[in-house]
Amino acid sequence: MDRLSQQLSFLLEIDKLKSIARQTLISDGSRREGDAEHCWHVSLFALVLAEYGPAGLDVSRTIRMLLVHDLVEIDAGDTYCYDAAAVATQTEREAAAAGRIFALLPEDQSAELRELWEEFEARQTPEARFAAALDRVQPVLLNYHTQGRAWQEHGISRAQVIARCGHIELGSPRLWEWVSAMIEDSVRKGYLQP
Amino acid sequence: MDRLSQQLSFLLEIDKLKSIARQTLISDGSRREGDAEHCWHVSLFALVLAEYGPAGLDVSRTIRMLLVHDLVEIDAGDTYCYDAAAVATQTEREAAAAGRIFALLPEDQSAELRELWEEFEARQTPEARFAAALDRVQPVLLNYHTQGRAWQEHGISRAQVIARCGHIELGSPRLWEWVSAMIEDSVRKGYLQP
Repeated sequence: MDRLSQQLSFLLEIDKLKSIARQTLISDGSRREGDAEHCWHVSLFALVLAEYGPAGLDVSRTIRMLLVHDLVEIDAGDTYCYDAAAVATQTEREAAAAGRIFALLPEDQSAELRELWEEFEARQTPEARFAAALDRVQPVLLNYHTQGRAWQEHGISRAQVIARCGHIELGSPRLWEWVSAMIEDSVRKGYLQP
Repeated sequence: MDRLSQQLSFLLEIDKLKSIARQTLISDGSRREGDAEHCWHVSLFALVLAEYGPAGLDVSRTIRMLLVHDLVEIDAGDTYCYDAAAVATQTEREAAAAGRIFALLPEDQSAELRELWEEFEARQTPEARFAAALDRVQPVLLNYHTQGRAWQEHGISRAQVIARCGHIELGSPRLWEWVSAMIEDSVRKGYLQP
């Protein structure tokens, strides 16, 4: 295959991300959110909320990271972050997926996109910390505005959300302050177990 | 409202883009593509196919443009590019939508995102020409791999696709060459009317 054919095969393959459903509902509550539209939404969070990110943040790199961060879910599926059994095998499943999916690209781009994904997962750089923060802020906004239905279905508690979202503070203290307030209000309203 | 509340209201409002359906089918043919997932997909086209863009292209700006280019469709709806009656009123409908949707943001960001959208629409800069090219390349890839079902449903002809996609050449001669080959093959296979 020539280079362009490889690139187009990759772009066709990743279309499958549109068929991976998340637990979060879209804002009108009519259905679960798809993975691809989540990636779009959270990229716009990066564009609009960049000012609350770490000093010296490269927003464009954060956006690239968010565009590719869920590609491994084409093979590994969406792992609900409150499903402990699924979370236990997540790293292994996603590494195998990365091995297959990024390899569809020409070697230089395969390495480039894989690096973006690994950087996101490692949460060590300002860009990755901010991206990982937004990846948790976005479902909190949707959960809050759909009366916590996804949380309630799974009987999620305040402590569970704090455990999974606490790292938002590393990426953005201001957004963590907002998320904390949403969590407390969700407990008051019965969206989250106390 | 304080600044963060305005930004979050905007981010909640644009969730509605997920409910706007396009004519194009996703690659497994199971359903029509949503607008938000289209924006994600075409942003990845920019990331992966940047080398075929105009010299000196700022890919990150192209990606930002593609992330926001369809927001006006929340109010204006998706205008099928082969529906002449809808295309006739498209500019007016989309301008009204831009007036409402971008205004939800704080003034500086409202201006910034509106500029990105206007630049995309005007197709004068390298970034906008490349973004507009990709916005046509992506549905050709999906239409071809779904046996032209969306084209066939509307009885679309080779000449119509060439008229709507010809500007790809301005943004990327190499991608236009590929699209032209796809069009001819689609006519041979009966996906497109001759």
